[in-house]
Amino acid sequence: MVRPLRASDREEVKRILEAADLFTPPEIACALEQVDIFLHQPQQPDYRLMVVENGQGKIAGFMSYGPTPLTEGTYDLYWIVVSLSEQRKGYGQLLVKWLEEKVQEEKGRLILIETSSQPKYLGTRLFYEKMGYHEVARVRDFYRPGDDRVIYAKKLNKERGRK
Amino acid sequence: MVRPLRASDREEVKRILEAADLFTPPEIACALEQVDIFLHQPQQPDYRLMVVENGQGKIAGFMSYGPTPLTEGTYDLYWIVVSLSEQRKGYGQLLVKWLEEKVQEEKGRLILIETSSQPKYLGTRLFYEKMGYHEVARVRDFYRPGDDRVIYAKKLNKERGRK
Repeated sequence: MVRPLRASDREEVKRILEAADLFTPPEIACALEQVDIFLHQPQQPDYRLMVVENGQGKIAGFMSYGPTPLTEGTYDLYWIVVSLSEQRKGYGQLLVKWLEEKVQEEKGRLILIETSSQPKYLGTRLFYEKMGYHEVARVRDFYRPGDDRVIYAKKLNKERGRK
Repeated sequence: MVRPLRASDREEVKRILEAADLFTPPEIACALEQVDIFLHQPQQPDYRLMVVENGQGKIAGFMSYGPTPLTEGTYDLYWIVVSLSEQRKGYGQLLVKWLEEKVQEEKGRLILIETSSQPKYLGTRLFYEKMGYHEVARVRDFYRPGDDRVIYAKKLNKERGRK
């Protein structure tokens, strides 16, 4: 159900981003830039794109992540978006759990997620907290005055990696 | 004395990075990647490379900076390195002051610098503090266990921008 993104998924991912009513045009361009790097530069290690399909084989959501450059064992979850019509069905959780398993397989130890302090991201932040991520740092006024960069983190349990 | 980096400076910048005895090979590759993006993709807006020359026209140091993607008025100082033989002569200060003037010209309001908590960067961190930058956030164990990502920031004084 979670699989790598393919070139034929790009339009649907773009539609999901635009329909979310959450992202600015430069933010959508940034997410699609990661999609295009993943599709057209297969050797690059930085961006990995995964989609989750619903029972009908339609894309319910997608995620981009990658090893954080210049770190040992730290990963960034850059984007995670679930289609409006597929929300509250557990697809976001599926993606995050898939990521955590994958990072543990690769001996990663820390996953970071950055988001904005804007009220419109409250649901997003509560989702991260439900998944066990905690705010570890905040840069005030990062995006614009009054809009902070909030960094969430989860340390992976090494015991689970040994199962 | 502070001028944009040219293709003919690349070897000297590489030498300065290697001689600093501070950076790992992947870090040096990352800095040179920014140099190459700046030299070969003149339209890209993300990385700007400047050098400072000494009285003999030799490169004393260099810096890369750029507007932080998806922010309004925030800039990142990515790399600033002064040649070992030219340290403690004020070249680092010249570069930072040039950057602050430039960011104010462009109506920027916040400059961020990220560094490591490792003891070998103590001199670097004291330099940032001397220049008026303060630690605003820290991600513990970011680079590796025990090696934190420390984020320094300076808010620019809007009054000065009006002179």
